[in-house]
Amino acid sequence: MDLFTKSIYSDGTKNYVDKPIPKLNDNVNIGLSMLDDDVSSVFLLRIRNGAEEYHEMKPIGNRGKLAYYQVSIDINEPVLSYHFVVVRKNVIYYYTQAGVTTYVPDNADNFVILADFIQPAWVEGAVFYQIFPHAWGNLYKVIEHIPYLKDLGVTAIYLNPIFNAPSNHKYDCSDYFHVDEEFGGDKALEELSKALHANDMQLILDISINHTGITHNWVKEKRHFYFENDDHSLMGWCGVETLPVLDYRNEELRDLIYRAPDSVLRKWLKPPYSIDGWRFDVADVFAKKDNVQLSDELWKEVCNAIREEKPDAFIIGEHWADCTKYLQGDLWNTPMNYYGFGRILRQFTGLPELFVSRNETLAKVPYKMTAEDVVARTIEHYSKFPQVIADAQMNLVDSHDVPRIHNYEGYSFEKVKAVVISQLLWTGIPCVYYGDELGIDGYTYHDSGFRYEMPWNLVTDDNQYLQLYKKAISLRRNKDAFSKGSRLVLYAKDYVFAVARFFKDEVYIGVVSMEENAKTIKLPISLVGAIEPSENIDVFGRSFEGSMNASNEYELTIEPESGLLIKFSCAQLRSR
Amino acid sequence: MDLFTKSIYSDGTKNYVDKPIPKLNDNVNIGLSMLDDDVSSVFLLRIRNGAEEYHEMKPIGNRGKLAYYQVSIDINEPVLSYHFVVVRKNVIYYYTQAGVTTYVPDNADNFVILADFIQPAWVEGAVFYQIFPHAWGNLYKVIEHIPYLKDLGVTAIYLNPIFNAPSNHKYDCSDYFHVDEEFGGDKALEELSKALHANDMQLILDISINHTGITHNWVKEKRHFYFENDDHSLMGWCGVETLPVLDYRNEELRDLIYRAPDSVLRKWLKPPYSIDGWRFDVADVFAKKDNVQLSDELWKEVCNAIREEKPDAFIIGEHWADCTKYLQGDLWNTPMNYYGFGRILRQFTGLPELFVSRNETLAKVPYKMTAEDVVARTIEHYSKFPQVIADAQMNLVDSHDVPRIHNYEGYSFEKVKAVVISQLLWTGIPCVYYGDELGIDGYTYHDSGFRYEMPWNLVTDDNQYLQLYKKAISLRRNKDAFSKGSRLVLYAKDYVFAVARFFKDEVYIGVVSMEENAKTIKLPISLVGAIEPSENIDVFGRSFEGSMNASNEYELTIEPESGLLIKFSCAQLRSR
Repeated sequence: MDLFTKSIYSDGTKNYVDKPIPKLNDNVNIGLSMLDDDVSSVFLLRIRNGAEEYHEMKPIGNRGKLAYYQVSIDINEPVLSYHFVVVRKNVIYYYTQAGVTTYVPDNADNFVILADFIQPAWVEGAVFYQIFPHAWGNLYKVIEHIPYLKDLGVTAIYLNPIFNAPSNHKYDCSDYFHVDEEFGGDKALEELSKALHANDMQLILDISINHTGITHNWVKEKRHFYFENDDHSLMGWCGVETLPVLDYRNEELRDLIYRAPDSVLRKWLKPPYSIDGWRFDVADVFAKKDNVQLSDELWKEVCNAIREEKPDAFIIGEHWADCTKYLQGDLWNTPMNYYGFGRILRQFTGLPELFVSRNETLAKVPYKMTAEDVVARTIEHYSKFPQVIADAQMNLVDSHDVPRIHNYEGYSFEKVKAVVISQLLWTGIPCVYYGDELGIDGYTYHDSGFRYEMPWNLVTDDNQYLQLYKKAISLRRNKDAFSKGSRLVLYAKDYVFAVARFFKDEVYIGVVSMEENAKTIKLPISLVGAIEPSENIDVFGRSFEGSMNASNEYELTIEPESGLLIKFSCAQLRSR
Repeated sequence: MDLFTKSIYSDGTKNYVDKPIPKLNDNVNIGLSMLDDDVSSVFLLRIRNGAEEYHEMKPIGNRGKLAYYQVSIDINEPVLSYHFVVVRKNVIYYYTQAGVTTYVPDNADNFVILADFIQPAWVEGAVFYQIFPHAWGNLYKVIEHIPYLKDLGVTAIYLNPIFNAPSNHKYDCSDYFHVDEEFGGDKALEELSKALHANDMQLILDISINHTGITHNWVKEKRHFYFENDDHSLMGWCGVETLPVLDYRNEELRDLIYRAPDSVLRKWLKPPYSIDGWRFDVADVFAKKDNVQLSDELWKEVCNAIREEKPDAFIIGEHWADCTKYLQGDLWNTPMNYYGFGRILRQFTGLPELFVSRNETLAKVPYKMTAEDVVARTIEHYSKFPQVIADAQMNLVDSHDVPRIHNYEGYSFEKVKAVVISQLLWTGIPCVYYGDELGIDGYTYHDSGFRYEMPWNLVTDDNQYLQLYKKAISLRRNKDAFSKGSRLVLYAKDYVFAVARFFKDEVYIGVVSMEENAKTIKLPISLVGAIEPSENIDVFGRSFEGSMNASNEYELTIEPESGLLIKFSCAQLRSR
């Protein structure tokens, strides 16, 4: 791909769309930029009521070597689907979210603007923090540490399950309508919610509506809410008989879980608990049982019920694989984004691919993921949903379900930093798993190894992990480039990638290397209007060698298995 | 891509799946083949109730340098979604319908087997023939020429609209319940249907349920079935006021069109008319009007109603662009497949891209489509739906809506032959537009130029078009490779592509060149188990230069702007 082709860029952020979430019948200005090099015409091709329609785009300004084009588009229907067509030197280029082709592209990769979409206001610049309550003691301990969370900078708390259940993880629920006394009961949740909201923090609760625990009243009362095995025993999730699976062919169950005003999902959204959203456990297998496939119907009903109760509720589905059908704006806001982030970064930094390694044979294959594959995997995924969904992706690397990366033998602090930098380089909401910010102890061969007690003693001024996370979180929250910016891959080869995040004239470029030796790379920084760095020290204080070369690229040396995040100066936008 | 990677192949045909359309709870054997070169393990990765599950595949035999692997899979749910994982020399390859990656692939490209799918029995080996009735006179003329159609070899007739309407194209319907007297009235249709069925031919009728003509009774009776403009005049399709658009928010309209037992769509499916399916005009824009977007709901209801009346009815939607959402097995059998075939071949052979050229500026760009783009465009599209849908794609190049290719100035017979060969090389049902098989006269600048009267005088033994079409149709009907075979691209570079169609040990390879000069290419024929051609004359009688080289490739010279279709000998499958 030549430099011109690489330079064609747009997205759904405020960088390129003046109203990223318009009302029906609004007009929006949509922009596109590319190297100002012999371009003869530029069009936006939108689909209006099923038919294609061309809109010619006009040049409106330049930033360095980049030309900006724009056109005003009327939002006539709920979903605006479009791509761009650029003519240069007798070649027609088609540009979708998936990139540039010289053949007509599939609509599935089109840019999409959703009219009247409700994006929770707190998503911009948000940082998730996941708490496994048992590791903190109870909800009052969480309240007590709100000043710590505020100082760390996180803005939304995702709590693992807290409803009545015998285990410490509480996915074996015995009563959805009450908070377990171990964690402080209903009153503790009420107080936690108030305290968090008073501090501008959001609260997401975790629930499995796929299965209950075997101690649930519904089991004791022999309610016909469960799938049965041939011998009439209750069918367990993944064959675990203590976790019987709910059968939503039962209408009363639907009433209890989400339909009735006092149903489970609605109760906790209402005052005095007023939670801000739900995270659904094992959402990938929910309502799927051989000939009984109800998931499409159920997710529609569940998500509608939640948003009827609270229009800006945030919905997270636990799904580790391709789940783009849930990410079109009508269902989930995000999965636990292992697929589009965590699985990729774990594999790229040398850890086992989370799914593939479940297979004994495949686990032993010493394959090293390339940067080209990191980029291909990420872009293919992100090209399948709208920007407003991309902005809400919960980008995690650790959780209660996977070993913490820094607990693997030989996984250096520099690698952790490379992953944290990557969380800033991917579009979405970074998620910190409690304790990661402290370099918490643990082990990788059992769940309990990554559900350790929160080590408050590690909260010290010289904890390098804490310094790293605080700085990264501060960037995410305070710099437009990270809180709502655009994203362009500038480089991907062998085991090094470089990604620019930018908003107007604010440009940061992150470089991540998993090479075994230092490597010098050339970055085409003119593609984002950048000129050169403000200084040869990255945002985390690391010095590096770099300078502009004669071809107008920035040549930079990256140390092995490390990351850099560099602020660049940028050319001014000059109107035509 | 190296030769090994290119060699990994499977599909949903009987070549690789012993029951391509299983019943729920059946077991099916699924196969995969690849060069027998240092492969250490092979898995099928299926999704069971939302979760991934590995099945190890075992080698069962070899054909030449190819190794065949197989595994038995239980069909536990209506949709089996799967891909393959191959380990070789410490690399993990993932293989979906979209091809091979070294990173985890999207489910959207997975192979899909639909349990209990109803494929019309006549689809295998079918050849469509489209008749614009006005050009034949009336339906009795069609009956009269059934011997001609049989001799030509076509198996299914697609008739443009025949219901009461003032125009000769009859898309401006005045009464859906009667056949226009111009064409012989209801009785003529009844007789035509009987005559065709008696000759093992199918009959598909064309209808616009998006709009009627302004002379329709519903307009006169002021039924509230139509969208209105602000001034209460009726809204016309594409602004044409004589074609008022139906508004399906009206329940009575739904009853009349498809719900009631005597509704339009049901009436003609029932005896004595007993048509075999429907082709829907302007299906791309159907039930889409700004804030009133009913198409998802309507298509589900319409297709369900049709299949309730006739389970194996064939449904064709007029859609010229990406419409894969309609091609998942629950809605259409096929669009008019311009997008996945006609638009591609027209552009590749030097004609204007049908959509792009609607834009004045883009129409003037003299861009020549490459073979790489032909292949990328085709594979990306076909990887988004199941094999049973691929098998039913209506692959057309001409129709009542586009100028006939051979009527363009300078469009040689050899180019037509290249396109006809391509119809055999693409998976699906070739469609012949009446008269193309005779090289009918016409012009390209107006509709009437491609709706000419059928020139019976051109039916002569030495008509080269007729010879070409008869031979091609005979191959499609009588050779497994074309009627139900697999498809693998062997070569695509600059302006030459080569595609193999094969079933068991029957292999044909087609080569199409749009180069300006003769070109010698090397074909890796071992990828389909082929050895060498049975003779150096193609199926249409053309001699060519070709021989095996030292690297075990077949070197062949293809003349400029031409096509070859060659039968190859094949190695025997030896069981392990």
